[in-house]
Amino acid sequence: MGMFFNLQLNSLEDLLLVELNDLYSAEQQLCDALPEMMEAATSPLLKAAFKSHLQETQRQKSRLEQIFVDLGKPAKNITCQAMKGLIAEGSEIISAEGSDEVRDAALIGAAQRVEHYEIAGYGTARTFANQLGYDNVVRLLQMTLEEEAQTDKKLTQLAEENVNVHASQKFGSSS
Amino acid sequence: MGMFFNLQLNSLEDLLLVELNDLYSAEQQLCDALPEMMEAATSPLLKAAFKSHLQETQRQKSRLEQIFVDLGKPAKNITCQAMKGLIAEGSEIISAEGSDEVRDAALIGAAQRVEHYEIAGYGTARTFANQLGYDNVVRLLQMTLEEEAQTDKKLTQLAEENVNVHASQKFGSSS
Repeated sequence: MGMFFNLQLNSLEDLLLVELNDLYSAEQQLCDALPEMMEAATSPLLKAAFKSHLQETQRQKSRLEQIFVDLGKPAKNITCQAMKGLIAEGSEIISAEGSDEVRDAALIGAAQRVEHYEIAGYGTARTFANQLGYDNVVRLLQMTLEEEAQTDKKLTQLAEENVNVHASQKFGSSS
Repeated sequence: MGMFFNLQLNSLEDLLLVELNDLYSAEQQLCDALPEMMEAATSPLLKAAFKSHLQETQRQKSRLEQIFVDLGKPAKNITCQAMKGLIAEGSEIISAEGSDEVRDAALIGAAQRVEHYEIAGYGTARTFANQLGYDNVVRLLQMTLEEEAQTDKKLTQLAEENVNVHASQKFGSSS
């Protein structure tokens, strides 16, 4: 949601548009933030994951633009406050001092919070679009939702691998 | 994450503490925000869900306090920026004009974003605690994680029921 002054919620369509505008702002902010996260990551695998997620995020943003065209409602210029907070957290990690591996683990955690935000948002929007019978919108939202869930899964795998390496070093295991 | 100036990430334990402090601030902010969301909800079922989630959130906050005692590290006074943004979004909905049912649907969507934030945060913290061999911490985090997932599921059910009622009114169905 993003600072709609005098927010009007008269119909489910109003609410769907609020959710879509919120997600659009979220994707835009993420397109701006991911290059910095990519730069800050040390592990080549994590860098590659952020790079591929940036390309995916750009496609997801275009998909939302397509939805606004389909609905005949232009996107509004709002700022999703939650994504702003999520990205502020990512910036703190980027500028953190200490171990590269620990920072990588922290970056993965920040990215997973972002994915979960989007999963909740896209899931909510899809439910409303479905009830309104907007089949094409549902189809486009569902595509993004599946990609976000996949990204979250990939990040979990990277976290476990990264953490395993780190923990084995910490405890001096030879595994 | 919450405005740690000169964030130091030297070890996985440092990172676990950052995650736990972030979650602690998130739960505190949520304890303050849920009574207003409960007040704003129109559906008695949704009011009851927020009331029961407030009690649960207070228990989850106590569980984190127990973890800080176990680890011998006092909680820090930080503000989780992402939860601040999530709650700002909730406040916009609370003050929205229009249909009570549509506002209820919007409140559910806001609450689900909060749940997903917590699911990602607790999942990350649990992974780190597990790698550090802090079994009691893992057990406590896992309890909360399961409760959050359950709450998210309950909210999805409420959203579907609420939206179904609304959609049938909108389209004049007699179902």
